[in-house]
Amino acid sequence: MKQNKYDDDNFFGAYSRMHRSIYGLKAAGEWHELEKLLPDFNGKRVLDIGCGYGWHCVYAAQQGASYVLGTDISEKMLEVAREKNTSPNIEYQKLAMEDIDFADDSFDVVISSLALHYTPDYANVCHRVYKSLASGGSFVFSAEHPIFTAHGSQDWVYGEDGSICHWPVDKYFESGRRETNFLGADVVKYHRTITDYVKGLTEAGFVLTDIVEPMPTEEVLNDDPDMRDELRRPMMILMAGRKA
Amino acid sequence: MKQNKYDDDNFFGAYSRMHRSIYGLKAAGEWHELEKLLPDFNGKRVLDIGCGYGWHCVYAAQQGASYVLGTDISEKMLEVAREKNTSPNIEYQKLAMEDIDFADDSFDVVISSLALHYTPDYANVCHRVYKSLASGGSFVFSAEHPIFTAHGSQDWVYGEDGSICHWPVDKYFESGRRETNFLGADVVKYHRTITDYVKGLTEAGFVLTDIVEPMPTEEVLNDDPDMRDELRRPMMILMAGRKA
Repeated sequence: MKQNKYDDDNFFGAYSRMHRSIYGLKAAGEWHELEKLLPDFNGKRVLDIGCGYGWHCVYAAQQGASYVLGTDISEKMLEVAREKNTSPNIEYQKLAMEDIDFADDSFDVVISSLALHYTPDYANVCHRVYKSLASGGSFVFSAEHPIFTAHGSQDWVYGEDGSICHWPVDKYFESGRRETNFLGADVVKYHRTITDYVKGLTEAGFVLTDIVEPMPTEEVLNDDPDMRDELRRPMMILMAGRKA
Repeated sequence: MKQNKYDDDNFFGAYSRMHRSIYGLKAAGEWHELEKLLPDFNGKRVLDIGCGYGWHCVYAAQQGASYVLGTDISEKMLEVAREKNTSPNIEYQKLAMEDIDFADDSFDVVISSLALHYTPDYANVCHRVYKSLASGGSFVFSAEHPIFTAHGSQDWVYGEDGSICHWPVDKYFESGRRETNFLGADVVKYHRTITDYVKGLTEAGFVLTDIVEPMPTEEVLNDDPDMRDELRRPMMILMAGRKA
């Protein structure tokens, strides 16, 4: 159940060639919105679940975090993180997100970037995150949008001339496993509804503080006209909760 | 800008023949979920925006509300409400939702059922509702789901054999006017994103307390197999906020 696709050589190779892998946060289309949801990191203890190359860890450290722990199931990811994104107060640890089990009040902020759609057990992760947070602590994450994951094809419907007609939605209320293609490989992702995402937070005890569907910036739209299609359906959802 | 489609004779006639118009809340597919989001009405002052036939007003009165005001832009709707759903502590008033302008602390609970997708000015309505509420007061509403409203056709994509292929999503981030067909008439509705719905509440000052996408109950699914298609995409979204 714990998927470790990123330790597959071919998949990891393709991932490493993505713009966001090479250029970090500034090349991630959602970063300008995710950054706004993040709390002040100054003096905070931060956990990054599914940290990948560690771009968010190093950001947190630069923003004054006193301690940052990045966890990921992929050893290959962590190798790059340890090489590229080090800082005296950043640690990296190989750990599946389903297995995080920290003492109460271990962290002030928990973040997760585009990892939670890989777990079948989001509600469980929310409970574990809640437990690990100090009172008043924040949980901020991004995941693939339910509109993006529902149908399972993760592709547009095209007309006979090859142009995009629309994005298909189907099986919306069938939360669960989707076998899809990402970076040329078969990958399992988990669709869940907006309700599921909200419920995972509120049932764990979080107060829901924000939900944002990021759009590409004007700059990105001007640089790459193909990005205009990204305005036709949302690809990601950002959510933020606070431990009361 | 203030649409009063329900005073159109043909449209109103078609509306009056809908199950939910004849049988009230128990015939409304989302009611079992909306009811869960409603606060205790006992001794509360309640405003119902776009009250229609007044089914929710009479429910609030039955649950112990001390005073209920139902507002609607349609005189025809209010005529039926005054006839069908009366109670000594319910008042009905002809008023467009964009024009509500009550003194601070006039209500403890504001509800709105499937009306807000008719206004181009949702954010303004949220501000006005916030102002009218007492501190600690609740705003609970249902609206058509962004997945349902984005494309504008409000219909499935069908295959050559007439069967449903999927639901189309397009122009998701183009919030605004959609010309669509409802009950055999041309009707203007307003699409907005999940982000827009959340932002309207939070920017007005509300704490977001819940978001639910209602599914048909097992009972309804068993009674009418066609309703299974309702599991393929969400049609409505329910949201709840609290004035801190």
